[in-house]
Amino acid sequence: MTKFTIGIDFGTESARAVLVRLSDGAEMASAVHAYADGVIDEHLPGTSIRLEPDWALQNALDYVEAVRVTVPMVLAESSVQPEDVIGIGIDFTACTMLPVTRTGVPLSALPEYHDNPHAWVKLWKHHAAQPEANKLNEIAMERGETWLSRYGGKISSEWFFPKALQILNEAPEIYDAADRLIEAADWIVWQLTGVETRNSCTAGYKAIWSKEDGFPSPDFFAALHPRMRHIVQDKMKEQILPLGARAGGLTEEMARATGLLAGTAVAVANVDAHVAVPAATVTGTGRMVMIMGTSTCHMVVGESPAIVPGMCGVVEDGILPNLAGFEAGQSAVGDHFAWVVENCVPASYQAEADARGISLHQLLEEKAAALEAGESGLLALDWWNGNRSVLVDVDLTGLLLGATLATKPEEIYRALIEATAFGTRVIIEAFEENGVPVRDLVAAGGLPERNRLLMQIYADITGREIQVVATTQAGALGSAMHGAVAAGSAAGGFATIEAAAARMAHLKEETFKPQAETQEVYDRLYREYVILHDYFGRGANDVMKSLKALRAEVLAQR
Amino acid sequence: MTKFTIGIDFGTESARAVLVRLSDGAEMASAVHAYADGVIDEHLPGTSIRLEPDWALQNALDYVEAVRVTVPMVLAESSVQPEDVIGIGIDFTACTMLPVTRTGVPLSALPEYHDNPHAWVKLWKHHAAQPEANKLNEIAMERGETWLSRYGGKISSEWFFPKALQILNEAPEIYDAADRLIEAADWIVWQLTGVETRNSCTAGYKAIWSKEDGFPSPDFFAALHPRMRHIVQDKMKEQILPLGARAGGLTEEMARATGLLAGTAVAVANVDAHVAVPAATVTGTGRMVMIMGTSTCHMVVGESPAIVPGMCGVVEDGILPNLAGFEAGQSAVGDHFAWVVENCVPASYQAEADARGISLHQLLEEKAAALEAGESGLLALDWWNGNRSVLVDVDLTGLLLGATLATKPEEIYRALIEATAFGTRVIIEAFEENGVPVRDLVAAGGLPERNRLLMQIYADITGREIQVVATTQAGALGSAMHGAVAAGSAAGGFATIEAAAARMAHLKEETFKPQAETQEVYDRLYREYVILHDYFGRGANDVMKSLKALRAEVLAQR
Repeated sequence: MTKFTIGIDFGTESARAVLVRLSDGAEMASAVHAYADGVIDEHLPGTSIRLEPDWALQNALDYVEAVRVTVPMVLAESSVQPEDVIGIGIDFTACTMLPVTRTGVPLSALPEYHDNPHAWVKLWKHHAAQPEANKLNEIAMERGETWLSRYGGKISSEWFFPKALQILNEAPEIYDAADRLIEAADWIVWQLTGVETRNSCTAGYKAIWSKEDGFPSPDFFAALHPRMRHIVQDKMKEQILPLGARAGGLTEEMARATGLLAGTAVAVANVDAHVAVPAATVTGTGRMVMIMGTSTCHMVVGESPAIVPGMCGVVEDGILPNLAGFEAGQSAVGDHFAWVVENCVPASYQAEADARGISLHQLLEEKAAALEAGESGLLALDWWNGNRSVLVDVDLTGLLLGATLATKPEEIYRALIEATAFGTRVIIEAFEENGVPVRDLVAAGGLPERNRLLMQIYADITGREIQVVATTQAGALGSAMHGAVAAGSAAGGFATIEAAAARMAHLKEETFKPQAETQEVYDRLYREYVILHDYFGRGANDVMKSLKALRAEVLAQR
Repeated sequence: MTKFTIGIDFGTESARAVLVRLSDGAEMASAVHAYADGVIDEHLPGTSIRLEPDWALQNALDYVEAVRVTVPMVLAESSVQPEDVIGIGIDFTACTMLPVTRTGVPLSALPEYHDNPHAWVKLWKHHAAQPEANKLNEIAMERGETWLSRYGGKISSEWFFPKALQILNEAPEIYDAADRLIEAADWIVWQLTGVETRNSCTAGYKAIWSKEDGFPSPDFFAALHPRMRHIVQDKMKEQILPLGARAGGLTEEMARATGLLAGTAVAVANVDAHVAVPAATVTGTGRMVMIMGTSTCHMVVGESPAIVPGMCGVVEDGILPNLAGFEAGQSAVGDHFAWVVENCVPASYQAEADARGISLHQLLEEKAAALEAGESGLLALDWWNGNRSVLVDVDLTGLLLGATLATKPEEIYRALIEATAFGTRVIIEAFEENGVPVRDLVAAGGLPERNRLLMQIYADITGREIQVVATTQAGALGSAMHGAVAAGSAAGGFATIEAAAARMAHLKEETFKPQAETQEVYDRLYREYVILHDYFGRGANDVMKSLKALRAEVLAQR
């Protein structure tokens, strides 16, 4: 009897549900629902209360509404019977967190707190907790906290404890009223099941948890703020469940709302990028998954949690059970190409693209593809938005070298593609030098779908074969796979994520293989890239920071 | 009685005659004539003989035709009587040279040589003699020729002896047939006067001559090519006349052709850039003249011919009599801004410029002017066309540093203006460190006319006051001034170029003064510029050359 599960991928602007067949991973139906309040970054909905710069909030009730809307749609569209849907999995942006009551009610839903911005969901890209992150990093350094090295030496302002500390600093009444502080990922699972759980992925990558050492010590939290000493015991949960575990069964209320059966297995929550790894067929060591869009997230698993300098994090059980999950990142990838298109392409190109009915991206890709490696004479450092891995430095900036009066926009476009590939190679080499093998690559996300030149350049520069994930919905598929594992094999699901991946996950047939001749050219360029990377990135010449500091001074005096 | 002279400025595409009043330098009339054969870089006129890449020839008869056309026009337009025109001066592009017979007939005008490209004028931008220049430099280095240091350590392929050697190597029959090898500047004076003269400016800057040491030794020429041993004695002239000297009087034939009186004084030839110095009112030490266009030529005089590393040349009597004339250069200035406009400005800017009826240059200047110094966070190396002074390295390439996702085209535009100004400051500091004072600046050429932002940035970055030459025809005016000196005071002219300048040369009233606050910011940026300049330009990191070499390899294999 054919069984199905539903994966729900909660993105920044909308949520997407996909109903998937377990026998082969076929996507039977999908539905998208945009959040009514979207990204809240100007004023609180229904009020004139303005937000400060760098704030980004959401309305938790939008997430529940997305479930109520999309699940009935996929059931209807697929004509699958509710009894054949044996599990649900979800994945979410992270760290996206909120304060709630003991029963899970978001404080923002209570009239007495509605007008306080700190009562609302802090979206992943809420960047107003930078002072808190700086303080946290400073104290962790002083105290010699060993967990710091698991995160490339720096905790991001986007993560859980800087956001929690910002609430305590700026709205202690909200901190007090919050019985629980929770990732939205875990919160939506709580809404589905009535059971509060915490998952190893967000806990590990965003809340400094490790399987071996748990959370940071109460003494550390007390050093951060006396009232935070027992934050984990009081407002979070020390028990962290591995991915694929069953969080609980669907509640009667949510069953009525969605048309599914009460008791349907719900998997513990996951993060959008990480859940894509098994959806990209990767369930073991040696293959790195790249989620490529405006930025790139690199994930690979290893036998044990080695310290690889400059990673975003290493978490046991963080991606796959019983393996150390490594995450690295490039803070801008597609954003570079968009920058060229928006700023550096003359009207004549626009006219050519318009006349041919193609986009400027397509035109530039076509012109760039006609070039040989090394032909432009250009070399760039892909730091238009800083460097995440391996330098972990937001104050680095972009560099373009080799320009002549004959330099064309498509040459700049290609040089930036190459630069991001060189940046990926630096990450791969850091993994391998620290005992985490990366034999080949799997790409997912918007960019690999659209840009074949990019894929070939990545293969040539990294010297590794690349395959592309078959689905364009790797997040939702991965969630559906975890739903199938939560349901278990007895119910017609799978015993393990490996078993689920073997049936449900697929790659496109086409592979991008390194071309020996081009590789040789790129090896030479890469050596030059590394020299520039280290010269500007490791302190020999701090000109990028000096210019940023000067800029800040000038703007402050304005 | 008011007297007049005529200056004729022979440019790359056309010649311009200006008739000037000696009492105040007023331009009474001017006329332009485009050369019929223009720049010959595809095939010889009237033949199907194709030229190789890098060739650029001209037809010497076009120069004579330009005199025959323009001089009657300025006489007619101004209604000045021929007897009141007491002198003629000319300036020319250089090194622009040709082979002629003993009586001055261009070999290209003789049927037997017409179809040989080497019989024609080699224009300054004929770049096909690079192998000859390389050989010349190599031999000069080996032999430890002391004159090499007067030219920044390198003789350009554009100069006289590489071009002569190319004739000898590739067309020995033309070399043999050439009784004389001569600068077009000197040749046109010969045509006007019937007297063959050679001037100190082209001899000094383009033909390795110095007042003290004369030309290189016969042994050097023999090392270059056995048959060149006596090239100076056989095909040139050892007597070199100072600027402002009277070459001779106008011939009967040219008098008839132009409407001037026979015997009218004709000054020895001059070079377009250098002749602009007295036209910019500069007749002594301490003021640097910048001729700013696609590239910039910097000229300053000193008491004695010091060696300043990385200059284009130092020549006694080369600019002004009895002073050492120093020339430096930036191989691209306005070309950088044109590159931005052509390659790096999006269609939306084009639309805005079109709607407002202004050029993209004007729009970018306006947007760039709204920025503060240091605000963009960008810093560039102005090497899109290599570096002439002080690094003398054509293989250096452009660099842009500090880019972010928020970087705008006008920020790049301004960063490139700033970079060219930093490049000028490097040149000024090289002069001053070697005992040649540069107290303030005078700008001439197309750029200062058009771009006020550029002038202010140059003042702020160099820390020096800048004035702009009043005339847009500094070359022709300078030539007319030399014509007045050649005529002499007895005839109503001037005894010296200083006396001519005092009456005839003018600056605009407006001056651009350094602004202390901006200067402080630019001083900080300049320190960073110098670090990058030296790191990439002096061998610490040869990545620009490596990329160029790789590019050449890739293109060769194509």
